Amino acid sequence: MSYRQPAAAGASGNHATSGLHLRRLGIDTYQEPVAYMRSDCDICRSEGFEAHSRIELWCGERHIVATLNVVHFPMIALHEVGLSEAAWRTLGGNDGDLVRVLHPAPVQSFSSVRAKIYGHPFTSEGVAAIVCDIVAGHYSNIEMAALITACSGSHLDITETIGLTDAMVKVGQRLQWQADMVVDKHCVGGLPGNRTTLLIVPIVAACGLIIPKTSSRAITSPAGTADTMETLAPVALDIDAMRRVVEREGGCIAWGGAVSLSPADDLLIRVEHPLDLDSDGLLVASVLSKKIAAGSTHVVIDLPVGATAKVRSPQAAMALAGRLIAVGEALGITVKPVLTDGTQPVGCGIGPALEAHDVLAVLQNIAGAPQDLRERALLLAANVLELGGKAQVGQGMALAASVLDSGAAWRKFQAICEAQGGMRVPPKAGFTHPVLSQHRGQVVAIDNRRLASIAKLAGAPKAPAAGIVFHAPLGSRMEIGQPYLTIHAASPGELAYARAYAEAQENLISLQEV
Amino acid sequence: MSYRQPAAAGASGNHATSGLHLRRLGIDTYQEPVAYMRSDCDICRSEGFEAHSRIELWCGERHIVATLNVVHFPMIALHEVGLSEAAWRTLGGNDGDLVRVLHPAPVQSFSSVRAKIYGHPFTSEGVAAIVCDIVAGHYSNIEMAALITACSGSHLDITETIGLTDAMVKVGQRLQWQADMVVDKHCVGGLPGNRTTLLIVPIVAACGLIIPKTSSRAITSPAGTADTMETLAPVALDIDAMRRVVEREGGCIAWGGAVSLSPADDLLIRVEHPLDLDSDGLLVASVLSKKIAAGSTHVVIDLPVGATAKVRSPQAAMALAGRLIAVGEALGITVKPVLTDGTQPVGCGIGPALEAHDVLAVLQNIAGAPQDLRERALLLAANVLELGGKAQVGQGMALAASVLDSGAAWRKFQAICEAQGGMRVPPKAGFTHPVLSQHRGQVVAIDNRRLASIAKLAGAPKAPAAGIVFHAPLGSRMEIGQPYLTIHAASPGELAYARAYAEAQENLISLQEV
Repeated sequence: MSYRQPAAAGASGNHATSGLHLRRLGIDTYQEPVAYMRSDCDICRSEGFEAHSRIELWCGERHIVATLNVVHFPMIALHEVGLSEAAWRTLGGNDGDLVRVLHPAPVQSFSSVRAKIYGHPFTSEGVAAIVCDIVAGHYSNIEMAALITACSGSHLDITETIGLTDAMVKVGQRLQWQADMVVDKHCVGGLPGNRTTLLIVPIVAACGLIIPKTSSRAITSPAGTADTMETLAPVALDIDAMRRVVEREGGCIAWGGAVSLSPADDLLIRVEHPLDLDSDGLLVASVLSKKIAAGSTHVVIDLPVGATAKVRSPQAAMALAGRLIAVGEALGITVKPVLTDGTQPVGCGIGPALEAHDVLAVLQNIAGAPQDLRERALLLAANVLELGGKAQVGQGMALAASVLDSGAAWRKFQAICEAQGGMRVPPKAGFTHPVLSQHRGQVVAIDNRRLASIAKLAGAPKAPAAGIVFHAPLGSRMEIGQPYLTIHAASPGELAYARAYAEAQENLISLQEV
Repeated sequence: MSYRQPAAAGASGNHATSGLHLRRLGIDTYQEPVAYMRSDCDICRSEGFEAHSRIELWCGERHIVATLNVVHFPMIALHEVGLSEAAWRTLGGNDGDLVRVLHPAPVQSFSSVRAKIYGHPFTSEGVAAIVCDIVAGHYSNIEMAALITACSGSHLDITETIGLTDAMVKVGQRLQWQADMVVDKHCVGGLPGNRTTLLIVPIVAACGLIIPKTSSRAITSPAGTADTMETLAPVALDIDAMRRVVEREGGCIAWGGAVSLSPADDLLIRVEHPLDLDSDGLLVASVLSKKIAAGSTHVVIDLPVGATAKVRSPQAAMALAGRLIAVGEALGITVKPVLTDGTQPVGCGIGPALEAHDVLAVLQNIAGAPQDLRERALLLAANVLELGGKAQVGQGMALAASVLDSGAAWRKFQAICEAQGGMRVPPKAGFTHPVLSQHRGQVVAIDNRRLASIAKLAGAPKAPAAGIVFHAPLGSRMEIGQPYLTIHAASPGELAYARAYAEAQENLISLQEV
């Protein structure tokens, strides 16, 4: 007898029912699949299912594991099982389809998570089983939260990180390119407005390198590169679309989640985001699994260092750089970390559309375009060009600058946007409010984390036009009553909320008398 | 301007709506409060709320924080907010009541959880703020999961454990008794069937000591003492009811959750249970916060030690005992840990009603009553009597035995049950199945954890009659085909599931040829 006996079959053979009928309830539970069954339905009663039971639903050959919510009211019929949107998407099927409901097998791999919490390192088999179960949808949100907590801080060593990265690559698609060298770049984040990817890809592609860039959406920041790019062109490209863009233009800027490269990473994010925990191991696995799955061979990694950036000290940056190089080497790719200034936001805008406006200004060589964004992009592009053999060491900067200044990068960017589905005009927010300096003096420090919080409270990245424009770079002078940032929001409520938070903060910028 | 501006008021004053109308949806999401709002309602749109947003709902002077599920179908009306059962219970109110919907303040105390995950010990202020926020309902399930993971294994030191215990006492009620000495006992669990409390309380109370015992429901086991007692008498006593019982009978056996002693503990359980993580620190805080809040001054703690019990080695037991004594001393109570045999189940039954049958047999001095249960209860009662000054050291055992043998304990137990609301007959399961030995020999080892798993798969503790009866104590002899356990279940599906699991296991009992 099968250990996972279908409830409908009934071990004792005395069940009249042969399953329940599917019903889409239209409830968005975010990414966790939830199923709704009547407390008085045959299957709940015969199987002893209760609220928060984990159940397995089979519809034809497809199945999902879902968390059960028990319904006491006649919102659904006795013979129905309702599905949340996430469950509906994953299971497929149509309203009225017959489904079988089973007890799921215990998630065996969670014993490896428990062992890790108790202080025993992950084995490569253990972590591979965990990643498989996550991608199969077998982990509940609280199990994911326990896993992420166990991997946070410095709890993963190099060997565990290699195992995790490798496992994350293996459960997704892996792209192959008709080229011996495929370059890429990545920024570990933590620096608001640092949207150099949208400059580096066209510069590098214009020089003839292959750069099939996939980016993530925001994890704990007000905008991810995919969020920003999405205000300029479609980013949810499937593998075929991505391949067409890269074959035509040499590069693309696509959302990684849409192409199933390292799908485990995208599932982990649903819990990482609200918990807002940092982890060197998860970060390296997330970054490198995407790069390896994208078929990259040579990757430049931007590590912004600053007291309020994600990497807070040169020591921490060196440790992270070492881990990136070691894990890359173990898995067959060349990684070049580049430490950059992480003491202040890059450009003026923080939030998807506001960052897109900065990018466009640099690409178009407009007077007043943010020079810091331009300089960072050139530095990183130079490293990619040198790593990719398009420039001698020391010559990359000049090549990158010439491509940008000539307009070749701007033309390439437009061509990429068109190839991805058509260029768009980034939206503008309906509601803005300037936040005024209470003091005068020279700006000597900036709290990036709280600036990011304001942008998030204003609605970024969910509202693409929301965020802040920052007017007070390090070294600039402020007068009393002068605006040092402007909040942009898509709704009055969010504007008020971000404004109240901003105005309640002390020392978002630190001023020194001059 | 308030940082937590009510959405209904609207910062810009241009909202026509003044809130949403409550509607009970009858959806049981277990303990997490969930609210349901239409994606196209004014407040979702103006406030930027999305699926999985945390929102604050105010109904008159009462409020809750809930997780938002966004509804795309007309299951609820545009002007309505639906509530899950947990949210409905906590908020109070009636269908149609007007509620205001706000952005909740960020949960500041979670930064202490993050710091702990990164390796910084909890401060007493930090942990107090966490416990307050948990009791206020501000922690989501995944935040609770991160907290529990951070506290698991040996991650809490003595000082942190003292801080956590103290904080858990302070957020709940604390009972006062008209007595200088109030005794108590507790078992750290991990040993199926170890239901000595139902024997110790009547023995000790019959000797004139005050023992206002509160017990928990099952955390990771097939039955908690409260689950077992509930098959014999009501256990959900409020403080006044508990006081009346103890004033009349000297003792009670009540469910701790109903009297709001250490309410944080009951909230933590909702996530601890499915994660099934062990933690010395959480265990000590859970046990001692209940005892201190119950007004106990002298507490005997049963630590069963065995390879498959919760405490696996004498070394681990000594460490736990030391922590219990130290935390008790710091918080003003005398704790006496007693190490006991944890190598096999106690009694024959595992599961609420099956354990109750064992207890009744011992109380009634029935021939064939489980002697191991009787001996354990007498040993622990003896320690309580000696600690409470009712017997000289070394004389407690004789006193306890005389009270049990004379029928005084049985009369006291019946009186306690009547005082708690009336004695009940424990239910019997409708479906049973014997599991047969495949080998012959003498029983030399028993896997308590997997026995507990079978009882849980059979439906315990949710189905009170479910569980197993175990027929093969250490040292007994088994023939091929002889039943070594019998599964009891309330449904054929659960019976089949537990049976399939049991029959798939190797070495649930280890036999040696004789």
